[in-house]
Amino acid sequence: MKQTKILLEDNEIPKEWYNIRADMPELPDPPLNPKTQEPATPEDLEPIFPKQVIKQELSEERRIPIPEKVREIYSIWRPSPLVRARRLEEELETPAKIYYKWEGVSPPGSHKPNTAVPQAYYNSKEGVERVSTETGAGQWGSALAFGTSFFDIDARVYMVRVSYDQKPTRKTLMETWGARCVPSPSEKTEYGRKMLEENPDTSGSLGMAIAEAVEDAGKREDTNYSIGSVLNHVVLHQTVAGLEAKKQFEKVDDYPDSIYGCVGGGSNFSGASFPFIKDKIKGEKPDLKVVGCEPEACPTITRAPYAYDYGDSAGLTPLLKMHTLGHDFVPAPVHAGGLRYHGASPLFSKLVKDGHIEGEAFHQNEVFKAAIKFARTEGFVVAPETSHAVKGVIDEAIRCREEGEEKTIMFANSGHGHFDLSSYEEYLDGNLEDFKYSDVSADESIENIPKMKE
Amino acid sequence: MKQTKILLEDNEIPKEWYNIRADMPELPDPPLNPKTQEPATPEDLEPIFPKQVIKQELSEERRIPIPEKVREIYSIWRPSPLVRARRLEEELETPAKIYYKWEGVSPPGSHKPNTAVPQAYYNSKEGVERVSTETGAGQWGSALAFGTSFFDIDARVYMVRVSYDQKPTRKTLMETWGARCVPSPSEKTEYGRKMLEENPDTSGSLGMAIAEAVEDAGKREDTNYSIGSVLNHVVLHQTVAGLEAKKQFEKVDDYPDSIYGCVGGGSNFSGASFPFIKDKIKGEKPDLKVVGCEPEACPTITRAPYAYDYGDSAGLTPLLKMHTLGHDFVPAPVHAGGLRYHGASPLFSKLVKDGHIEGEAFHQNEVFKAAIKFARTEGFVVAPETSHAVKGVIDEAIRCREEGEEKTIMFANSGHGHFDLSSYEEYLDGNLEDFKYSDVSADESIENIPKMKE
Repeated sequence: MKQTKILLEDNEIPKEWYNIRADMPELPDPPLNPKTQEPATPEDLEPIFPKQVIKQELSEERRIPIPEKVREIYSIWRPSPLVRARRLEEELETPAKIYYKWEGVSPPGSHKPNTAVPQAYYNSKEGVERVSTETGAGQWGSALAFGTSFFDIDARVYMVRVSYDQKPTRKTLMETWGARCVPSPSEKTEYGRKMLEENPDTSGSLGMAIAEAVEDAGKREDTNYSIGSVLNHVVLHQTVAGLEAKKQFEKVDDYPDSIYGCVGGGSNFSGASFPFIKDKIKGEKPDLKVVGCEPEACPTITRAPYAYDYGDSAGLTPLLKMHTLGHDFVPAPVHAGGLRYHGASPLFSKLVKDGHIEGEAFHQNEVFKAAIKFARTEGFVVAPETSHAVKGVIDEAIRCREEGEEKTIMFANSGHGHFDLSSYEEYLDGNLEDFKYSDVSADESIENIPKMKE
Repeated sequence: MKQTKILLEDNEIPKEWYNIRADMPELPDPPLNPKTQEPATPEDLEPIFPKQVIKQELSEERRIPIPEKVREIYSIWRPSPLVRARRLEEELETPAKIYYKWEGVSPPGSHKPNTAVPQAYYNSKEGVERVSTETGAGQWGSALAFGTSFFDIDARVYMVRVSYDQKPTRKTLMETWGARCVPSPSEKTEYGRKMLEENPDTSGSLGMAIAEAVEDAGKREDTNYSIGSVLNHVVLHQTVAGLEAKKQFEKVDDYPDSIYGCVGGGSNFSGASFPFIKDKIKGEKPDLKVVGCEPEACPTITRAPYAYDYGDSAGLTPLLKMHTLGHDFVPAPVHAGGLRYHGASPLFSKLVKDGHIEGEAFHQNEVFKAAIKFARTEGFVVAPETSHAVKGVIDEAIRCREEGEEKTIMFANSGHGHFDLSSYEEYLDGNLEDFKYSDVSADESIENIPKMKE
């Protein structure tokens, strides 16, 4: 029988994360304090992050040790399989080899616990008993609930009200792991009360939820804030996936010619691709093609300017240098909730800016069509976000067929779609709209990107 | 780092299923034609099953080859991991070692595709283009949709109307894999139309859905019927899990002292335990304890008589010799829908009857409490059905602590609970009722077990 899954044993879980900052020819400009526009200092971040996380955020060490306790918890689902998608290859009649790194095996169902677990660990080590965070569709909130459950840390998740009402299972999942999930805006914070007073029927937004979570962490001595994407330490933790994948390719004596992944905040795809991009930067694999896939409705890396902007819509976070559609950009309601973010990780953005990563944008109907083809050949029903990468890979495999190229393609299969089936239903029923970028003009939000001094 | 997961490579997927009929000191009495009460013949079964399946149903060969094509599809998720539950052991402060065989890694999320894939394969090989089946909560329907998607077979799933309305995600999952799912009773069959005429607002029942699926298969030349539990061939296919588990225990030089699993129709637990029960029957492991866990509300193996009865509530199937609460027994509405079955596999029932397997019955609140403990230590959120086994194991591990016994416990972790979170929510909200067997007296249904001739 031909091999399908390339597995690693528990003791092959990487012992260190990979920090691409050590290898970048030029680092991204530093985050700035939003008030002074001066580079943010560790002290700026200490009220809401543990010291070890701040150290990682600013570190330029190439290898950062993964604590043994974190590796133990990783071993619940890691090393995750690298899978050869042989049936998809056959279906597409492509000479290309397609592999995917499968992160849907984690208990919360995505790559998110790769960072939730170490964040919970570092908070616990520094005596923090409670963390706050925001969540949109619920993927990150459930990962943090999962991560904190191992360290007796209380987690308070502010979940955008419209999702809280529409996706009750995500809330239940968080509570099963012992977290508290409240709809945002809530009565729990000053900002939330203000929002509710202004508009008692508001459906909430990620911007409001971030504001509540940050206020909660800032005001309470016992509480830190936890974030699921964008920042350097999150991207660092996610490299565990790419490091494993590299080892798995070695086992079958192969190496990808191209790597695909979906991009919202960018941490999933950064984690899967950075250990390979290292070889590209260093000139060992100059032809490696790295493609971030995103929605046409929120084309951050394919169309947005590269500028300093806030990470949240309320303008509370440090200013980050990144591709941004403007912090108050409101994308059309595509089903890939995790990709509806105005910016992208500064590290990832810088690599895009410098030409190491390219972007492709897709409409949601073609994306779901690709996901259905994947489900009917490879079996797994993937998340709407991940489906963008599947669409990119299918296009590339067809191109390989047309041009007779026996390339090796890898993609970051970041999670399953078990909690997103209502979006599949809308697709199958033919009710899905193909929002375009122009449906929600970003002219105004790009105009609102803050002006820098000098 | 201590090893948690015991993995096998793709090429270690068993090449043969294990047929316990070859090793049973005494076979169960044969199935009977319901009209004549004479032993059912292969010809009785041919209108609705493929020949190869009928052959397996009646076979006494010890080893039956797994077709290469089936092994290839198995390799999407098989071999499944055997996992050492170290954090649960620590939490319980038990000297016992706890292992679980984790079937939640399959795309439909349970052990069911172990039989759905070969059933689809054999139907396809014999030129069948369409299969029909019934499903209650949707676990089996989605597994069959998954299985048939690889063989271009149309699947028609009759889903009990109340579940169809309450669990729309299951229907969407089936349709994602290309199956057609209709609420039962439906307008598609004579029996369905009759039921709807008598009561247009009926919420349906598994009995009605079976009747529709069997009628559909019986009337159409191109269609066979497919079943997800109870019968010998289903149990046979499920032994792939137990055979793998045995190999995995060999790798760590261990062997279970006790094996736990949940029991509805019995195929999951039979599959996980029969390769071990073989050693017990043969006198090599005389002290092996095998415990089937079931709801107090539907205590088939702990309380029901052992008798010939119908497999469905309408009385259409052959008469099967088994533990049965009566074919028209209606269990209280516990959340473990897959355990709400009046009977149990004839092979499994016979082994219970002969003292090789014992039973334990639990209330649903204690079962969910055990599942939450499992989620917060081992990470995975398991199905309400599976949670019965978790409860049994936790009790046994505590007993080991109290008596200082360093036993090795294994359990069949048959599936995840991603589509069952509303039941977790009811538990967490304190809204779950502890139905007892006496809440729904079985006096009448036991009275209705058909009388045999002579």
